Amino acid sequence: MKNIESMEKLISALSMLPGVGKKTAERYAYSIINMKKEDVEYFASALIEAKSNIKYCSICGNFTDKDVCDICSSRNSDTICVVKDPKDVVAIEKSKGYNGLYHVLHGIISPLENRGPNDIRIKELVQRVSSGNIKEVIVATNPDVEGEVTATYIAKILKPLGVKVTRIAQGIQMGSDIEYADEVTLSKALLDRKDI
Amino acid sequence: MKNIESMEKLISALSMLPGVGKKTAERYAYSIINMKKEDVEYFASALIEAKSNIKYCSICGNFTDKDVCDICSSRNSDTICVVKDPKDVVAIEKSKGYNGLYHVLHGIISPLENRGPNDIRIKELVQRVSSGNIKEVIVATNPDVEGEVTATYIAKILKPLGVKVTRIAQGIQMGSDIEYADEVTLSKALLDRKDI
Repeated sequence: MKNIESMEKLISALSMLPGVGKKTAERYAYSIINMKKEDVEYFASALIEAKSNIKYCSICGNFTDKDVCDICSSRNSDTICVVKDPKDVVAIEKSKGYNGLYHVLHGIISPLENRGPNDIRIKELVQRVSSGNIKEVIVATNPDVEGEVTATYIAKILKPLGVKVTRIAQGIQMGSDIEYADEVTLSKALLDRKDI
Repeated sequence: MKNIESMEKLISALSMLPGVGKKTAERYAYSIINMKKEDVEYFASALIEAKSNIKYCSICGNFTDKDVCDICSSRNSDTICVVKDPKDVVAIEKSKGYNGLYHVLHGIISPLENRGPNDIRIKELVQRVSSGNIKEVIVATNPDVEGEVTATYIAKILKPLGVKVTRIAQGIQMGSDIEYADEVTLSKALLDRKDI
């Protein structure tokens, strides 16, 4: 039996989602066919609305439905936290451990994937630091090779501007067990030990 | 930071998909925001088109975009294969091992989930068998408790109508290794042994 055309179009659309293969797309498609008409219309309008309403904040690059996002327009701070993706902003905000500004790079320096400093929003960060009264830039990229390379690059390029550049702490995870910590984390935690 | 309204609507829409929790919905939502506008429009129209074009075949209950599906309208057969879901039809058609008609139950008898014979398309099956010249009904429900219960029920209700009711064979999977077959399958395969 040839699959019906509308069904194939739906499956191919669902396959655009990250990590969704043909099998999963088919399962999603069947469930959509079985949804109420109003629910499918809600789904479709959510797609269109999100795409047309959500844009990047012209200052920090985070998602927003305004020209300048709520954080940039409401917070008066001399600290910028640099992250890779908008979802990192969400994670840090949830932690309630930070009340400053953000800068979303939308990517990370990765020689392997052929992505250099000019392919992410570093130029915009340099502009913000040179033009504003920013005192500290916290680099909160992931603690992996690409995250470290990006952090080092940012430090190198920002320090001549007279701003303090810091890196979020790396060490033993809260609530975890030293016995089960991996070696790299453990040696990093020992190296970065603090007075008590 | 409160999530933007359009983003929340999109995440809640994506959470309607089967097995998709908040984390996955968020990941999907971010990827949709990063898609090209045309792709998002394609996605939304695929949803609407599929929902409005695809309906159930008035004879067999399979998905179709016509009143009577291609299989029902083109095949001249006296055999009906009974399956639980439309995707079972797709699987059997792919096997190319069958060229007869189908009947989709849209569910399975499940006392645990409070679903009886009247909640699935058994009445319609009885009507087809009584009114047409059907000689054999193959019950191809899954080889689990609910599938067996449903098969037994269908056999009991159809046999008085003078039709042959069969069950798809259960046994060792083709290409598999007897050593690793589970006990239930193995004893079933021995019980159902055939002359060679």
